[in-house]
Amino acid sequence: MEEQTIIFGKNSVIEALESGTREFNKILISSNSRADVKIEQIKNLAQKRGVVFQFVAKEKLNSIEPEGRHQGVIALISPVKYIEIDDFIEKHRGKLASVVILDGVEDSHNVGAIIRSCVCAGVDGIILPSRRGVLINSTVEKTSAGATNHIDIIKTNSLVNAIQRLKEENWWVIASDHHAEQNYYEIDYTDMSFALIMGAEHAGISKSLLKLSDFKVKIPMLTNFNSLNVSNASAIILFESVRQKMTK
Amino acid sequence: MEEQTIIFGKNSVIEALESGTREFNKILISSNSRADVKIEQIKNLAQKRGVVFQFVAKEKLNSIEPEGRHQGVIALISPVKYIEIDDFIEKHRGKLASVVILDGVEDSHNVGAIIRSCVCAGVDGIILPSRRGVLINSTVEKTSAGATNHIDIIKTNSLVNAIQRLKEENWWVIASDHHAEQNYYEIDYTDMSFALIMGAEHAGISKSLLKLSDFKVKIPMLTNFNSLNVSNASAIILFESVRQKMTK
Repeated sequence: MEEQTIIFGKNSVIEALESGTREFNKILISSNSRADVKIEQIKNLAQKRGVVFQFVAKEKLNSIEPEGRHQGVIALISPVKYIEIDDFIEKHRGKLASVVILDGVEDSHNVGAIIRSCVCAGVDGIILPSRRGVLINSTVEKTSAGATNHIDIIKTNSLVNAIQRLKEENWWVIASDHHAEQNYYEIDYTDMSFALIMGAEHAGISKSLLKLSDFKVKIPMLTNFNSLNVSNASAIILFESVRQKMTK
Repeated sequence: MEEQTIIFGKNSVIEALESGTREFNKILISSNSRADVKIEQIKNLAQKRGVVFQFVAKEKLNSIEPEGRHQGVIALISPVKYIEIDDFIEKHRGKLASVVILDGVEDSHNVGAIIRSCVCAGVDGIILPSRRGVLINSTVEKTSAGATNHIDIIKTNSLVNAIQRLKEENWWVIASDHHAEQNYYEIDYTDMSFALIMGAEHAGISKSLLKLSDFKVKIPMLTNFNSLNVSNASAIILFESVRQKMTK
């Protein structure tokens, strides 16, 4: 394995083992960890896949993941594989598909939670800019509960170019913008391939991307407290698309 | 002030000053902090309300909030005021109202994000058990972006008793349960006062509370990855109620 990354936490490791999309170097399990259904599951999955696991002192795990969120399990694995926008488009050609574009979202917990909601809502991909906002790191993987292994992750130097490529292929582009006039539930998500752009919590979506959007939608609030967390806002819009698909 | 707590972060402090619901001891501002619109706003609001502010070394702030999330501002203020369930019921008698009940949610970030969504969605109160899960702490206040000052917060020794009181007063009780048959969007939220129970991320809702529920609802997923974050699940259900109210 040329490069490696760490993932930690029982569910993250189980998801990565089950997905079969990651190459494992080894799994480290705390020798202090109590007998536990999930630890047993990790050992069984590792054996099935021929992955080495070792029991190590808890202090060893704490030295690798100092914030103490490892729950007694750390895996050394190959990094998430990013794919190119053109490969993503090709893969989903001829089907109704969807993708979420994060424009400068900087909080790893938010990115992880958004990826988790994306997978639950059947979204096919997530597009992250190489230079603004976070890429996939260990915190994103942990917060996503392993969802990073169930979605195409596209990294791009230019969100503008990625959006233009999608538009050339007849994808529709929706921007979440609290200045918008249209409400998010006034769009029909069921008969198009769509890209949903979510912006950074304070700055919102860049003007250059707003200009490329086919729809701008807002989430109406019942009070003046106009300040949804970006992962909650993403979930609200994506699950409206699910609701429409389920009730059509 | 008999007891005091800290809140930190620019938005949290601004929200608390604007809400007028909290008693301030003083505000500490980092003397290193750059000129900034929000710091100016805090100084102006503090002057208007007769609240003392002091410039202190950044190290002083770091010693009070060691995780470095204070953004140069910490306020020493009175704790959130909890109210009694009977007072809450009385306050909203004769109106259509709503409340979210958290059954053992333990992550402060989730509790904060849920309170934030509640306020955006016009929910009137949040009920927290005294002994299971978290109460309002500084992390909840920060994550809520100040929303804790815009909602009634009820602390109870017994969620069962609180729910029974609500039911006696003709509130309807909805439990979010992924084993449910009914989908969350199949309920009409517009013509009743309702309490929505959200459970702990792994354990779900206690059986004793499920038994008291009038409706059990699930959020259908488009994949087998059945694992929404509890704050996202709350937002999805609450904003369906908003959608229904806006489109009725």
